[in-house]
Amino acid sequence: MKKLEEYVRCIPDFPEEGVMFRDVTSVLQDADGLHLAIDTMQELVKDLDFDIVVGPESRGFIFGTPIAYNNHKPFVLIRKKGKLPCETVSMEYELEYGTAVIEIHKDAILPGQKILIVDDLIATGGTTEAMIRLVESLGGEVVGVVVLMELAGLKGREKLKGYRLESAICYEGK
Amino acid sequence: MKKLEEYVRCIPDFPEEGVMFRDVTSVLQDADGLHLAIDTMQELVKDLDFDIVVGPESRGFIFGTPIAYNNHKPFVLIRKKGKLPCETVSMEYELEYGTAVIEIHKDAILPGQKILIVDDLIATGGTTEAMIRLVESLGGEVVGVVVLMELAGLKGREKLKGYRLESAICYEGK
Repeated sequence: MKKLEEYVRCIPDFPEEGVMFRDVTSVLQDADGLHLAIDTMQELVKDLDFDIVVGPESRGFIFGTPIAYNNHKPFVLIRKKGKLPCETVSMEYELEYGTAVIEIHKDAILPGQKILIVDDLIATGGTTEAMIRLVESLGGEVVGVVVLMELAGLKGREKLKGYRLESAICYEGK
Repeated sequence: MKKLEEYVRCIPDFPEEGVMFRDVTSVLQDADGLHLAIDTMQELVKDLDFDIVVGPESRGFIFGTPIAYNNHKPFVLIRKKGKLPCETVSMEYELEYGTAVIEIHKDAILPGQKILIVDDLIATGGTTEAMIRLVESLGGEVVGVVVLMELAGLKGREKLKGYRLESAICYEGK
């Protein structure tokens, strides 16, 4: 049987020189790869007790929804600014150049609810950290973060001290 | 048991006056609503023989991935311009004001493969029509389109003559 890592296509110098881009579409466009990705991520958090799955636009939607469906949990979207139609809370965070703002519906999480955050990737951890702060601003308790890929060289894990982080594939580099 | 329609929150005058916005997040943030949405959409196309599920950024990812997972099929992404890392084909189409461009990976579909397109919504049908043309430009055969919601008053269905279109919820208005 093929390993999960073998489904990931690696593209050198994308989006810029010196970066090795790990392409998630090659995992998804293989039925076995897609199944293995979702199943592996679920397996990593199967001991966790959570009420809601939260995932960010747009690749977080890909992994978050099946995991919510399979565990019969709600799925709550984190989106870029201005995309959610009802009252939101927002969080600004720093990117390499400039800042970004993400939002969540104010009524989507009740105080004390246990949240599992699902995403495709953790790199520097900036987005993940902002998502945690966003969930916590509504009183939610982040019980875990699960991603398909972790770029360990970018040290995102260090930003998430005190939180459980699971990755299905961990690359040593950037 | 609650009906699927009852999970959809309706927001008057969003994003502009006179428009009744049908909010899909209220379906997703209820575990039963999410299950019912996916199950209903799957049921509508259960007689279809398809090789690949295709869904567009970003709300098409939400419904496309669980349907691909549940049917053990690949999931292929259609994205906005510049987001896919490998060689793409693209399709420009008209919006109410201006144009938009969507892309798909060139190697994602082989000639003759049977494609099920999944999305959250069909309104005027412009995006759906562009997705069909994109799939067909790679030689794929669109065997069906399934959406959660159809705004029948905007007559998207008329643009898709000759194609099978299924919607889990059909609103008469716009």
